[in-house]
Amino acid sequence: MPELRHGPISDSWVIIAAERAKRPSDFITDEKNNGLKIEPAQCSFCPGNEGKTPPEIFAVRERGGPNSPNWKVRVVPNKYPALQTYAELGRAGIGFFDKMHGVGAHEVIIETPAHHADLADLPLEQIKLNIDVFVRRIRELMKNDWFRYILLFKNHGATAGASLSHPHSQLIATPVLPSEVRHRIKAAQNYYEKKERCIFCDLIIQECTLGGERIVEERDGYVVWSPYDARFPFALTIFPKYHLHDFTLMNEGQKRELARVLKRTLLRLKLLLNDPPFNMVLQTSPNPIPRPGKPGYWATLQYDYHWHIEILPRLTRVAGFEWGTGFYINPMPPEEAAKHLRAVALPEGI
Amino acid sequence: MPELRHGPISDSWVIIAAERAKRPSDFITDEKNNGLKIEPAQCSFCPGNEGKTPPEIFAVRERGGPNSPNWKVRVVPNKYPALQTYAELGRAGIGFFDKMHGVGAHEVIIETPAHHADLADLPLEQIKLNIDVFVRRIRELMKNDWFRYILLFKNHGATAGASLSHPHSQLIATPVLPSEVRHRIKAAQNYYEKKERCIFCDLIIQECTLGGERIVEERDGYVVWSPYDARFPFALTIFPKYHLHDFTLMNEGQKRELARVLKRTLLRLKLLLNDPPFNMVLQTSPNPIPRPGKPGYWATLQYDYHWHIEILPRLTRVAGFEWGTGFYINPMPPEEAAKHLRAVALPEGI
Repeated sequence: MPELRHGPISDSWVIIAAERAKRPSDFITDEKNNGLKIEPAQCSFCPGNEGKTPPEIFAVRERGGPNSPNWKVRVVPNKYPALQTYAELGRAGIGFFDKMHGVGAHEVIIETPAHHADLADLPLEQIKLNIDVFVRRIRELMKNDWFRYILLFKNHGATAGASLSHPHSQLIATPVLPSEVRHRIKAAQNYYEKKERCIFCDLIIQECTLGGERIVEERDGYVVWSPYDARFPFALTIFPKYHLHDFTLMNEGQKRELARVLKRTLLRLKLLLNDPPFNMVLQTSPNPIPRPGKPGYWATLQYDYHWHIEILPRLTRVAGFEWGTGFYINPMPPEEAAKHLRAVALPEGI
Repeated sequence: MPELRHGPISDSWVIIAAERAKRPSDFITDEKNNGLKIEPAQCSFCPGNEGKTPPEIFAVRERGGPNSPNWKVRVVPNKYPALQTYAELGRAGIGFFDKMHGVGAHEVIIETPAHHADLADLPLEQIKLNIDVFVRRIRELMKNDWFRYILLFKNHGATAGASLSHPHSQLIATPVLPSEVRHRIKAAQNYYEKKERCIFCDLIIQECTLGGERIVEERDGYVVWSPYDARFPFALTIFPKYHLHDFTLMNEGQKRELARVLKRTLLRLKLLLNDPPFNMVLQTSPNPIPRPGKPGYWATLQYDYHWHIEILPRLTRVAGFEWGTGFYINPMPPEEAAKHLRAVALPEGI
């Protein structure tokens, strides 16, 4: 059973997931990442190998039953879950420390049957289908009152932490609000209390009027920019220009346009930087728990938030300075990054 | 000129250091890290190649003048500094954003003339000499009232961000207090205000009495443990058991014993994990600025703090989940890590 732990200095929770590796020697060989060299015949995510994953949670397919081929998008439990379902939260304190059971969920969304495709290359309809599945699964997980936050993320390339190359995203539901999400939400709340306006909406206005040099693209209700204080070279954020706190409340048109903006943005990175490793993360409002007095209740003024997607290419190494201070050194000014990304020639008709 | 930037959501400063890389293609080849394969004849840090570094700031040598061979420890400016000396801080706001010039210092401490040695292998006297130089350089940089924090760190191995294999540490002086350092100091201050005791002293008592399973070694005034909420496998912290907020105020005996504990700890990691890549970071009190009313003044109750050293082996990859939430997944319980590290057979007489 994984365990969640919290110490007095860091103010962050850590998942201690002992099941994932055992001996010191397992860590020495970790760098090899043989997983990424697997061919379709061996790949657990390829059609025909459905039996190699745990039984599926959900799939989009035109014919055939669960765990048969002919699916378009498939959702399965992670075989080595960071968090698991369990009968109780087990919250407890030991002196300075806090702990709880590693309760949660960890799902894998297989984005396409095509082993060698990647999200940037998929047809728009297939990307839209994935967005539909993301929304559906997040909403399903939100029904569980123990889950305080549901994080959608994607690791692309070994350097970005992917252990399998077949295109996939992941969902982790956590029983506590993660520290960085809490800080973002607090910043938005504090601003709203003072101004009665969304901080992200105001930031979008500022960037679209004064900060044009950081903007990569602005169209169809979305704006893509490299943040003023980007921690990593070519880091990008996709913001909806319409105010919406919760990613899962997008309408059909908004999802369709997001598919297009996402594809265009990922293609720009792929073409400019030769298919770089990257992490993609959805920032959205936490799971509302409308029951004051219930353990775990945490009042969120959720409408203050504004969902967005972060894309973090992994082109530089994080070293002692960054780990020691939380201070990042970015050798690529976001204004330069945006200039290069704007100049990428995209194929016609996307 | 590097620039420091601060945005409204992250609450952290970022260094935008445009001088360090220019074209998108520079980032594509970054992964190769050819630097680590350099042989002594080409190595800027090897004796005889003193002319390949900027002129030295300080050195320990028995004979010969500055920038000649025969040194034991040598301090030079970083050739590609993250921060630089400059005539003014240039603090300014632009709408939501804050910026200032990238004012600071960035030094390299070459720990030994021996290209293929590493800190764990050096004789105790040589490690002690390095500690003396660390203290001397930090104290020298503390004389500059613009420098709010001086970070000592070491990157060992390409995965940990080292670009040269010749053993070296680095010092970066920053004109703002880094966010993670601020959080640690605040935690210590808040605790002291309530209890009139040092939080780290209390944590040491708790770990030495109740948490023995996480302790790797306790001797000569120091305790080494893997933290209860370790973010990384085999992460270690070295704490002085005596209360001292400022690393540079150690007495001779304390420095000598630190050399021994440091060597023993690094040797354990090297022997158990086959010379793993790691980051080592000194956490110490910020530079006190005893002049209220002066720009940049920030009141630190510095005596509340308790210096310590963090050692972070880089054996797992940080991925989307971690970047998105600040929540880490550690597949090695610190109790197991400590058990393995305690069991390492160290050479006699160290």
